[in-house]
Amino acid sequence: MAKDLSLVLLLDCYGELLTERQRDIAEMYFNEDLSLTEIAETRGITRQAVRDSIRHSEQTLLETEEKLGMAERIIGMRDCLEKIMQHCGDADTEIAQLAREGLLLL
Amino acid sequence: MAKDLSLVLLLDCYGELLTERQRDIAEMYFNEDLSLTEIAETRGITRQAVRDSIRHSEQTLLETEEKLGMAERIIGMRDCLEKIMQHCGDADTEIAQLAREGLLLL
Repeated sequence: MAKDLSLVLLLDCYGELLTERQRDIAEMYFNEDLSLTEIAETRGITRQAVRDSIRHSEQTLLETEEKLGMAERIIGMRDCLEKIMQHCGDADTEIAQLAREGLLLL
Repeated sequence: MAKDLSLVLLLDCYGELLTERQRDIAEMYFNEDLSLTEIAETRGITRQAVRDSIRHSEQTLLETEEKLGMAERIIGMRDCLEKIMQHCGDADTEIAQLAREGLLLL
């Protein structure tokens, strides 16, 4: 089961739409980078139950992104603000500060 | 029933989570600014059915924002990009162009 890095962003955007149990397992898997076996041992459940939970969460996150497209908007905004930062170069102008504040919101 | 303008943004963010019928009615009410009576006549349903549908949609949209907070992030980003535009003034610099592009994503 290959971990998809973009699911980290989807989990950040839509994690609250998962059940508490699904989110708990998905966070260990995607954010803390634990293996299926490690999560199974930590939570006292089977490796298969962990795998099923993650598959189900992935499906919910991907379907929600297909409907709402918020992660795509955030990636576009991040790209835009990073380019503004690059244009500012080393100068710590007010524009650079604003762009940095914007990036913290993403 | 007072129309809440911020619901226009919530409908933009999360409208796809409503049923097609709910979204249809909510768009007429919040985006096209039709009255309950006008919507009822257009769709051949009672004024009460329109009101119930809008109440239900409002609840879904508000609950989703409470969970995900995407509209708040978008308002913060918009504020940030508008301030960057103000700093650019009349000069059509690359930074101003990037900020304009960013605003189009929101």
